[in-house]
Amino acid sequence: MNIGHKCWVIPDGYIPPASTGSNRELVSHDAMCILNCNAQDAHVEVMLYFSDRDPVGPYRFAVNASRTKHVRFNEFTDPEPVPHNTDYASVIEADVPIVVQHTRLDSRQSALALMTTVAYPAAAGELP
Amino acid sequence: MNIGHKCWVIPDGYIPPASTGSNRELVSHDAMCILNCNAQDAHVEVMLYFSDRDPVGPYRFAVNASRTKHVRFNEFTDPEPVPHNTDYASVIEADVPIVVQHTRLDSRQSALALMTTVAYPAAAGELP
Amino acid sequence: MNIGHKCWVIPDGYIPPASTGSNRELVSHDAMCILNCNAQDAHVEVMLYFSDRDPVGPYRFAVNASRTKHVRFNEFTDPEPVPHNTDYASVIEADVPIVVQHTRLDSRQSALALMTTVAYPAAAGELP
Amino acid sequence: MNIGHKCWVIPDGYIPPASTGSNRELVSHDAMCILNCNAQDAHVEVMLYFSDRDPVGPYRFAVNASRTKHVRFNEFTDPEPVPHNTDYASVIEADVPIVVQHTRLDSRQSALALMTTVAYPAAAGELP
Repeated sequence: MNIGHKCWVIPDGYIPPASTGSNRELVSHDAMCILNCNAQDAHVEVMLYFSDRDPVGPYRFAVNASRTKHVRFNEFTDPEPVPHNTDYASVIEADVPIVVQHTRLDSRQSALALMTTVAYPAAAGELP
Repeated sequence: MNIGHKCWVIPDGYIPPASTGSNRELVSHDAMCILNCNAQDAHVEVMLYFSDRDPVGPYRFAVNASRTKHVRFNEFTDPEPVPHNTDYASVIEADVPIVVQHTRLDSRQSALALMTTVAYPAAAGELP
Repeated sequence: MNIGHKCWVIPDGYIPPASTGSNRELVSHDAMCILNCNAQDAHVEVMLYFSDRDPVGPYRFAVNASRTKHVRFNEFTDPEPVPHNTDYASVIEADVPIVVQHTRLDSRQSALALMTTVAYPAAAGELP
Repeated sequence: MNIGHKCWVIPDGYIPPASTGSNRELVSHDAMCILNCNAQDAHVEVMLYFSDRDPVGPYRFAVNASRTKHVRFNEFTDPEPVPHNTDYASVIEADVPIVVQHTRLDSRQSALALMTTVAYPAAAGELP
């Protein structure tokens, strides 16, 4: 199978600056969930955009063939960690088609909140 | 009517491992809501993808003509139950066009959270 | 302007059977939010699909030219009210292009939950 | 890069009329999150549509080249503030392609709720 797009956009990036609950599962996080249905591994590069400084990246990782990977922006370290309580956006590019869904868990207040959307898939004609 | 696509993707699959409230209605769940507008029944096959092992499936069920079915991943049993507190993704294929929406209800903490998105519809050219 | 589609689908219809708070604003509801950017009024017809019985409708209303209308399924009465705590789906057709977003507010437990998604727009070739 | 569309629609506009918590971060808000990947600044114009009166706008602002801007409808002032507890919808136009995501944070009750969706991208043929 060869399902998806090679470029996706998530305009609303934000890591809540606090959490109720300390185990990884309930820590506030901002995530991109990726499915790679291909028979080949996907090599992914993510650029982060900010409101007041130049883009940072690429952040690089692989999603193996026939695997999913739910990646938290909170856990990025190279080239630098993603600041909390700061607006950002991301552009996600892969060398094979993937599908990307954006999900945030926010446990700042006494009960968690969730939000999700399929990310914006860029058409082939929109690529660099 | 002949509305929808024959292949849909939900990258962010996750069943929360606990619930507040024990009646079915408020149990934490991850669901795909399907509409079949056709005059024929839809035969659906779902493959589940994981982060660290081979895909599992197909899970098979029907959505009758002119009916909706809201299917909880929690309630899948054959070929095997879906593990809780585990990242997965799903590819949903049908023999007639359907429309698929992904919804999660998470009642781990003292008030429930909800999230939803129309799933990603694969174009005809993306099918196997 | 002539923005949108003439047919939209919301697979995940559900009206929560209880609420915390009794003013209209905080009552649990399931809504379709419609924008009509046209210079003409939009005449809208909604068919509801269920899991275990034939479709019901059409429910009819207008969205005036250059106006938005946020319509709660809870408040439908003709041909019949929409049952609570029951899975349904909807197909929304209009005589001019509109844009439809699906939003649910669920206040069953002690703090409200929200979910939203742009509905699925049927392509012209998918119409009856 | 030249990713996105020049016209986007958010049918479900609503600013909750109260908040739990008074710092800007947790005040109830309705936002459009915009990414401008272009090498040129984007000049954005937003028209607001209501249920019972003529559209208001345009609200004008820029999103600089290679920057994101998360804009709260709450903070619009010119030509007039956006009323709270009132249904509205928005049409967002830019002179270069952008990507738009709609997010609402609602902290009326004792724990916040979140919802998000990628906005509806109007095709070139739908533009005025």
